[in-house]
Amino acid sequence: MADNLRVVLKRQPEGVPVPEDFALEVAEAGDEGVLCRTRYISLDPYLRGRLSGRHLTGVIPPGDAMSSELILEVAEAAEGFDAGELVRAHGPWQHQVRLRSEALQRVPNDIEPASLLLGVLGMPGLTAYAGIKTILQPKPDETLIVSAAAGPVGATVAQLGRIAGARVIGIAGSEEKCRWLVDKAKLDGIINYRQENLREALDRLCANGINMYFDNVGGDVLTAVMERLALSARVALCGLMSQYNSDAPPLGPNPGLIIRARACVQGLVVYDHEDLRSEMQAALAGEIQARRLAFREDVSHGLESAPEAFCRLMRGENFGKALIDVAA
Amino acid sequence: MADNLRVVLKRQPEGVPVPEDFALEVAEAGDEGVLCRTRYISLDPYLRGRLSGRHLTGVIPPGDAMSSELILEVAEAAEGFDAGELVRAHGPWQHQVRLRSEALQRVPNDIEPASLLLGVLGMPGLTAYAGIKTILQPKPDETLIVSAAAGPVGATVAQLGRIAGARVIGIAGSEEKCRWLVDKAKLDGIINYRQENLREALDRLCANGINMYFDNVGGDVLTAVMERLALSARVALCGLMSQYNSDAPPLGPNPGLIIRARACVQGLVVYDHEDLRSEMQAALAGEIQARRLAFREDVSHGLESAPEAFCRLMRGENFGKALIDVAA
Repeated sequence: MADNLRVVLKRQPEGVPVPEDFALEVAEAGDEGVLCRTRYISLDPYLRGRLSGRHLTGVIPPGDAMSSELILEVAEAAEGFDAGELVRAHGPWQHQVRLRSEALQRVPNDIEPASLLLGVLGMPGLTAYAGIKTILQPKPDETLIVSAAAGPVGATVAQLGRIAGARVIGIAGSEEKCRWLVDKAKLDGIINYRQENLREALDRLCANGINMYFDNVGGDVLTAVMERLALSARVALCGLMSQYNSDAPPLGPNPGLIIRARACVQGLVVYDHEDLRSEMQAALAGEIQARRLAFREDVSHGLESAPEAFCRLMRGENFGKALIDVAA
Repeated sequence: MADNLRVVLKRQPEGVPVPEDFALEVAEAGDEGVLCRTRYISLDPYLRGRLSGRHLTGVIPPGDAMSSELILEVAEAAEGFDAGELVRAHGPWQHQVRLRSEALQRVPNDIEPASLLLGVLGMPGLTAYAGIKTILQPKPDETLIVSAAAGPVGATVAQLGRIAGARVIGIAGSEEKCRWLVDKAKLDGIINYRQENLREALDRLCANGINMYFDNVGGDVLTAVMERLALSARVALCGLMSQYNSDAPPLGPNPGLIIRARACVQGLVVYDHEDLRSEMQAALAGEIQARRLAFREDVSHGLESAPEAFCRLMRGENFGKALIDVAA
């Protein structure tokens, strides 16, 4: 049998992570719990904050295994789980691992590929669904701006906004992503922030102001959008991609922008919305079925590809939900 | 008869206004509308923004009369108004002026002194009432922080929070104000930001975090409070005293603070809440009657005192609702 390998953090990254910040090493599966074989590993921007101890889910110190959400297959029947069953859990980036049965969530067995349970039907889908449902509450003909719009959260938010009848403008960083947002996700407009002047593009596309903003990035994009909020605007703050690689948290937009628009700016953390997961899965699976909801995956193959794939994600070079297909 | 005088803006102030930025000159009452005699002039921090053209109600350019909310007495019966009736209107800082009858709001005639209709029972009271009712929605035992707590808005917010059962901590800038907040407004705690380290005081007084914040000042006080928000905190952004005297709008707190607390940060502009005015007047008059709501006025006498009184307000040296008793 091949070695049981895992990915560990070798040293705390400085700025944008590089593959040399990580190492592969031989691992033990552990003594207690249900033996599982990892099928898919979710790569997420929030992990960057954990490497610096700045994320609310805690720190990953050098020497520890990288960990995130996984889809695993039960390898040996135990504690009420059958061999071959698919489960979702938070765990290490490792081929085989024993996990406490309380930490395992059974997943629907009719989702193909099961990796969707880490993407459009998983945490990113839940984030988008909760943001639309609890904060943005789009009304027909309102204008919705979404940053990182080609990412798994952004693309889902944007399309749920479109399905609700809003006018949706996506912000993304490549021609390829922008083309996909128009052709496949059917957005009303796109802004390539690397090619266009963002403020000029927003002025051109949002002459009546911005009613809703779903923010995945923070930084100057957040400020530029906040400068253009319409009265009674809603802003969902979800991610801070622009500052995950920096040491000191920067300042934010002038609070006067919130006052002027009588805006409501709310923080969105997906862990608060676990109660919406099954409703979300049913709703989004239905939209996918009806071909109203497009999605993309950015799959790397094999555990050893994880460090470079994570670094690509943190350089903003992924296109779609970043994940590792471990078995391949 | 004495001259009809008015206060004009002589030049745009740099930083904190000085009395030399203003001038008194002889004025005409005008040809059209109802002739009124000004009784009380409201002095408000937001006026500083108008002098630089940075307030949503527009600019007061050099050469124009200073203007704000007034209580006036109808001097000659006209257009359905009787001589001697008291009205409220936005108008120039001037002894006598004709105003369009549509711009005149009749006021209750049983409020004594009528100046309260510019303070605790006027715009500041309405601001406080709307903030409590539409944004903060205090629940018993929650902790509410109020900045500029001895000002007419802050003191009313703080006491409405206390009446709703919240634990209320006021931030103010003098021993005298802090003493009044404890002795008369019956707050649970106070912080003199000029004498204490604000962050240490907040940590000491809010060990379980801050559930509600009513912000009148912006700047570093806003950041310090936002660093300490409890989960599901509500923040009402109402004023930016810390930046009214500066030219360039500064940045605000890091948006990560809003995400971490899942906070809801909302802009509050009193003009949106005119529909609550009579409800507010009845509710607050009742609390005053029952001796549960304390208030203070900072009255200067005579029109010629207005420039210096406004400058004192902008230096933060007022204590209570700043107004001019014109007739005195």
